[in-house]
Amino acid sequence: MASNDTATPPHAAGSMEVPLKTSLAPPEYNGSSGGGGFKKHALLDVLLRVLLFATSLIGIIVMVTSEQTKRIPVAPGISVTRTAKFSNSPAYINFVATLSVAGLYSIITGLVSGLALMKPGGISTKLQFHFVMLDALLLGIVAASTGAAGGVGYIGLKGNSHSRWNKICHTYGSYCFHFASSILLSLISSITLLLLVWLSIYVLSKKIARR
Amino acid sequence: MASNDTATPPHAAGSMEVPLKTSLAPPEYNGSSGGGGFKKHALLDVLLRVLLFATSLIGIIVMVTSEQTKRIPVAPGISVTRTAKFSNSPAYINFVATLSVAGLYSIITGLVSGLALMKPGGISTKLQFHFVMLDALLLGIVAASTGAAGGVGYIGLKGNSHSRWNKICHTYGSYCFHFASSILLSLISSITLLLLVWLSIYVLSKKIARR
Repeated sequence: MASNDTATPPHAAGSMEVPLKTSLAPPEYNGSSGGGGFKKHALLDVLLRVLLFATSLIGIIVMVTSEQTKRIPVAPGISVTRTAKFSNSPAYINFVATLSVAGLYSIITGLVSGLALMKPGGISTKLQFHFVMLDALLLGIVAASTGAAGGVGYIGLKGNSHSRWNKICHTYGSYCFHFASSILLSLISSITLLLLVWLSIYVLSKKIARR
Repeated sequence: MASNDTATPPHAAGSMEVPLKTSLAPPEYNGSSGGGGFKKHALLDVLLRVLLFATSLIGIIVMVTSEQTKRIPVAPGISVTRTAKFSNSPAYINFVATLSVAGLYSIITGLVSGLALMKPGGISTKLQFHFVMLDALLLGIVAASTGAAGGVGYIGLKGNSHSRWNKICHTYGSYCFHFASSILLSLISSITLLLLVWLSIYVLSKKIARR
């Protein structure tokens, strides 16, 4: 019975199509041919990487240009000039370094993803596997850095009476506005990385469901 | 023709085994039969979830028991009693909340993973897909929370002369030791979550390679 069946390849191809059409996975999820579903997700991947690049670049620029100088009165008739800048706090130096890494990473992976989009075969499963590993690692790093900057920024905004840490944002308004914008952009970067991880896992699981 | 093929399941199973034996991936990566490779990774998954539970639980306990009361001299002969506790800082309240979520999540997913290990079929691809999605989300949340607690803790340890935030760890030594231990445990939790995401992606990609 087995030899009878293997002698009829058109029948075998027909039997393979039946579960594909009944399953939820679209048949265009084929690594060897660029169909609609594959192209759509690859394009979304590239767009998310461009968004990651844009948010990290703008985040760095906003943070680096946050310098603000104020004259602060210390006694009647006497005032000192104090400059608030991001490099005063280790949390913000780390923040800028992390966003730089995220920006650089997004350029490299965005270009590779873009080039893979051009090719008819699309991005290989192995490359996608390495990308999602690195995406997850970067997600952890960027999220931790955003959290640290946010935690320090919150003390700057609200102060902490228990530790006698005074708030500084009422004095350095523009400085704090820059910080808040930069942290928000970094948060968008983190969310973009999470979406990239989710997208890759979705595409990988679709490839399994297509079996 | 389709009805003819569905009437011969033994043959269909035989035709599926041929590409399995010729592919590079080991045949034990079969979702429907628990082989050596599958069992090994499922066991590692459960162990990592147990580690996540242990680190988050100990992290919460260490953080909650960090309360330290000190008499601080404010003038000769006069001193005030001040208590340092984790709930004084919003970053630490958020930290404890996040670790609680991580701990609860690890109990639920650990039990499901453990039960799946008992079953001969093992954990289904669909469930694994949902797990890795949630793992990645939790990785971002726990990493951000650890970063925030670390950023605030660093100010407590070193202070910040630019913002005139005085260090407090030289006064509240035991309090800071509790904090540092808890942040370290939370960092281990984050790394465990990253390893869980990596493990799941590895298993998913192995399932694709087996095709």
